This record gives sequence, C-alpha cells and structure tokens, in this order.
Amino acid sequence: MTGKNRYRIGVFGASECDDRISSIAEETGKILAKNNSIVYCGGRGGVMESVSKGVNEYGGIVVGILPTTNISDANKYITIPILSGMGEGRNNLIANSIDGAIAISGSYGTLSEISHTLSQKKPVVTIHSWDIMGCIKAITPEAAVRRIYQECEKNNIIH
Amino acid sequence: MTGKNRYRIGVFGASECDDRISSIAEETGKILAKNNSIVYCGGRGGVMESVSKGVNEYGGIVVGILPTTNISDANKYITIPILSGMGEGRNNLIANSIDGAIAISGSYGTLSEISHTLSQKKPVVTIHSWDIMGCIKAITPEAAVRRIYQECEKNNIIH
Amino acid sequence: MTGKNRYRIGVFGASECDDRISSIAEETGKILAKNNSIVYCGGRGGVMESVSKGVNEYGGIVVGILPTTNISDANKYITIPILSGMGEGRNNLIANSIDGAIAISGSYGTLSEISHTLSQKKPVVTIHSWDIMGCIKAITPEAAVRRIYQECEKNNIIH
Amino acid sequence: MTGKNRYRIGVFGASECDDRISSIAEETGKILAKNNSIVYCGGRGGVMESVSKGVNEYGGIVVGILPTTNISDANKYITIPILSGMGEGRNNLIANSIDGAIAISGSYGTLSEISHTLSQKKPVVTIHSWDIMGCIKAITPEAAVRRIYQECEKNNIIH
Repeated sequence: MTGKNRYRIGVFGASECDDRISSIAEETGKILAKNNSIVYCGGRGGVMESVSKGVNEYGGIVVGILPTTNISDANKYITIPILSGMGEGRNNLIANSIDGAIAISGSYGTLSEISHTLSQKKPVVTIHSWDIMGCIKAITPEAAVRRIYQECEKNNIIH
Repeated sequence: MTGKNRYRIGVFGASECDDRISSIAEETGKILAKNNSIVYCGGRGGVMESVSKGVNEYGGIVVGILPTTNISDANKYITIPILSGMGEGRNNLIANSIDGAIAISGSYGTLSEISHTLSQKKPVVTIHSWDIMGCIKAITPEAAVRRIYQECEKNNIIH
Repeated sequence: MTGKNRYRIGVFGASECDDRISSIAEETGKILAKNNSIVYCGGRGGVMESVSKGVNEYGGIVVGILPTTNISDANKYITIPILSGMGEGRNNLIANSIDGAIAISGSYGTLSEISHTLSQKKPVVTIHSWDIMGCIKAITPEAAVRRIYQECEKNNIIH
Repeated sequence: MTGKNRYRIGVFGASECDDRISSIAEETGKILAKNNSIVYCGGRGGVMESVSKGVNEYGGIVVGILPTTNISDANKYITIPILSGMGEGRNNLIANSIDGAIAISGSYGTLSEISHTLSQKKPVVTIHSWDIMGCIKAITPEAAVRRIYQECEKNNIIH
C-alpha cells in the first residue's frame, strides 16, 4: 500500500447486492480510506452504500455523484453529494474525475462505468465483475486496492 | 422490413475503421434510411461517417450527437448536428434518444454506448462487435436491421 | 432575409404562454422555416410548441432537446427529438448547437439559455423577453429573424 | 449565523476579477467555512480561486465542478475536484447540488448559474452582481452569508 498519495478512486457496482458483495465493497471502502484516497461512487444503495459505509468508518471522504436531483437518493454515508440530474449520464462524470477504479460485481450501469474509464486509458480492477479486455482481475479487496495503486503509480499520477 | 414505422435507431462504432467495416456501416445506413428510420450516431468519422453516408444516399435523416462544440468535427453527411460539448458523456444522450441500436465493431466508446442502451432495456444488435450478454448477434446489415425492427415491435414501440 | 444559408437558430421561451406570445412564436417558426433554417428548441409546450407548429407548417425541421427521457414529453410538431435526461442542463446543449437565438418572453429557464448563448459570443435577439446587456431587442417576428440572420452573417457563419 | 446546519452553498463568479472582488470572495469563503457549510464552485481562477482560498484557511471543504477533464485546471485550494468535461453545462450541476448561492460580480457564466438556481426555486444573494428579479442584494460577505442562511432556513432545509 502506498498511502502517501491522495488518489481519487472510483468504486463501481449495482444499487442492489447480496451480503457477500456488500462485505467486499465495505472492506474496499475501508482500505481505500485508510490509504488516504478520496472515493468516488454513484451515491446510491447496494455496492455504493457499502463502500461508502466502509470509507465512513475511517473518517474518509466519499463523493456520491447521483443520477437524480434529489438529495434523499444519497445513501447516508456520502460526505459530498453531487446532484447531477443526468441519470446514467453521470457515470462518465465519475470516470472523468478519478485516477482509476475498482468494479465490484454489477450490471450494465457498472459496465458503462468500466467502459468510460478504460476509454480514458485509466486502470480498472474488477472483483467478481464483467470480464472485459483491459481490466485487471482481483479476488480480495486488499489485492484490488494494491493493484489499482500500482497502476496509478505506473501512470505517474501524483497529487 | 417494416418501413411503416419511423423508428429512431442508433448506430454505434469507432471513429476509425477498415474498409470491410466501413462497407457494413454504409450498407446499414442505406437500409435504415430506405425503411424510414431516423439514424442517431456520434457524428464523427469511421463507422459514424460511413453510416451517415449510407443514410445520405437515400435522403434520410442522420443526427450526429458530437462530443465537442466544434461543428467542423461533424462528418459531412450529418443532417442534424447536436454539439454536446460533453465528450463521451454524449454516448448516454444517444442511448436516451433511440428505440434500439446496431453496434458495428468498435472499442470502449462503443461498449459504453451498448451498456447504456442495454441498461435502458432497449435492444442492441451487434455486427463483429463486443460479445456482451443481452446483445443479439447478426452477420449482415440486412439481418441486423431486420432484427432490430423485430425487437422494437416486440417492445410495442409505435411512432 | 437571406434564405441562402442553412442557419441553426435556437428559439427560447417558457413551457406555458398566453395567446399573444404563442402567435409570435408560431410566426417566428414559420419565417425561420421559410428561410431554410433548422430550428432548435427545448421540445416541450408553450413557446416551444408554438414555434414548432410554425416550422411544421412549412415542412421545416425542428429539433427538440428535451429535459427528460420520455418521448411523450415532446410536443407533436417536433421532427427530431433528443431525449437528454439532463433537466435544465439541456439548455446549454441548445446553446452549443446553434448559430444564434431568438428569445420570446420566458422565465428563468429562458434566462439561462440566453446567458449560455451570450457566453459563447453568439447573438441573441429578444421579443418581449429579459432585458440583458448584449441582447438585441426586436418587436416583430420578421424583425427578429432579419436581425438574427444579419448577426450570423457578421460572424461569417456559412453552412 | 446559524452554524448548526451543514448547508451546501454555491459561490458564483468569473474566472478573472480585480482585488476588491477577490477580497470579497475570500472573506465569503472564510465565513462559510467557519459556519460549517460545504462550498460548491466552478473550481477555476478569479472569484472561484479566492473563495476556495478563504474556505481553505478554515480547513473547510470546497468542491470544484470543473468545465474540463483536466485536473490542472483546478485551483490549488479545491478539496474535491469533479471533472465534468461539460463546459458551461457544469453550471447546472452546481445549481442542482446546492441549497442556495452567493453570486459575486461575474459575467454571462455567472448569470447562467444564477438563472439555473432561481429556476429551481433556490435562493440567490448577490454582491455587486447581476440585477435579476428574484435575487437578494447584499453589500458585505457577512450580510450575504447571513441572508443565504436565513433563506435556507425559510425553505426548511435541514441536513
């Protein structure tokens, strides 16, 4: 883990998920916060809520870029809400704002986030998610976070 | 072919392509225009230009939703330019505006268009493109157009 | 009137209006269509519907960039619907896409369209609308259309 | 001053400004941060940089929603960058995300932010800025911040 650098990391995933995926997301949020990253997500439930919860436990910052203009759509762990009012168009805003991403499971919305991020030549690490050329697979949250930091370092991203 | 109904069909693909893919795109544009569809694309070169050319030959309408605010980025066959200035964020605008889509080859930008369209439960037919669960594969432009109309009809879309 | 050039002209105004404003909007649409312009508007009711009706009578093209993703929000005269799903964020898409604009009456939404257009150094002619530094006032639709074409010509816009 | 409530307050203004306006913006940022507000701005220079500097001195959070996708366009005081890549279309994202706004001087971009905010029935207090029906005028940063909190309270906004 680097921890020295304040990376902006996206965490992608669906607004509903089972307990196993929820645990993985929460653990990922914890490790990212512990390592001083700012976490960007879609701001809603499921994987987004679990990762936000994890970040929150370590007093980290989690940005929720929401599809609606309704603040009550944000999960309760979001530090900074952005009310885009753009529906899934907000997925590209997340891709624009981050240094790299971790995708956890997810459906077509998650796939669009992965595609937008790869299209910008930014690294994407996946856990139990889409199998798309260019993504890096990881099994555990620890491995996923380690890999995304390695890739960000390779890209010489320094904040 | 139905021809009776004015479907709005997206054609997705990369801004650079080889001659074979270019021919497929142009032929797809011709058949869509002959069948009275309005074609929506990203407005630039490659597959987007070839499909626009095909539509143009039949005097059809092709809408180009461009990533920039620069009209000179539009290919010369675009009937209606929309200068989104949103980069790849414009891909979701195309998905929002159509009844269904045909994806021809393509890279990550195309994949994001496919994902946004599937996420809206709209049909996507692919020709030599991404192999994503939920897409329908076709080999020829004729087959692709026939299938996308069938799917639109199943969805009871009537304009 | 020039008529030679295919200008893209925005018409701005509220989704509800009285009969006098409605007549002005319809007449503006007719004159723009007669002069071969493509008209861009917000696609909904009120001034947007009246201008669309006017364009329609002359078989012109009227693009409706809608705030929602619901095609039934488009007025029945729209030739080309763009379902932005961006709420009032779509106002900047209209400003991006046009050579100049005519604003007819209107409230804060109209004011945002005027501001975005002026911010891009494109001309805005107003009829009974906001009194903003940089706008050109006109009383009749004929005068408004004549002035907007003059301004577009000054800007050396040729399509 | 309330200070009890974590309001999200937009500060609008141009990317270039004179020293007097810069001082007003910096002072506004300080008072907002002291009162525990999250400040949202366009993330660039001028008024945006001065208000960000003020927030920064009190260890507050300032969100910069940038027009580009280039992190180096953010001023150095931004805590949370959002790289919208939407040009001035990002102005509506700011209006969507806030409870109310303070506009300091500014040109057409600022006017579009004011319009989008008023269009959402959210309060706007102006200091040496556009004279638009519906805005509340203030002379000093202290008065402006006091008024915007009063208006937010009237709207029963509680975070």
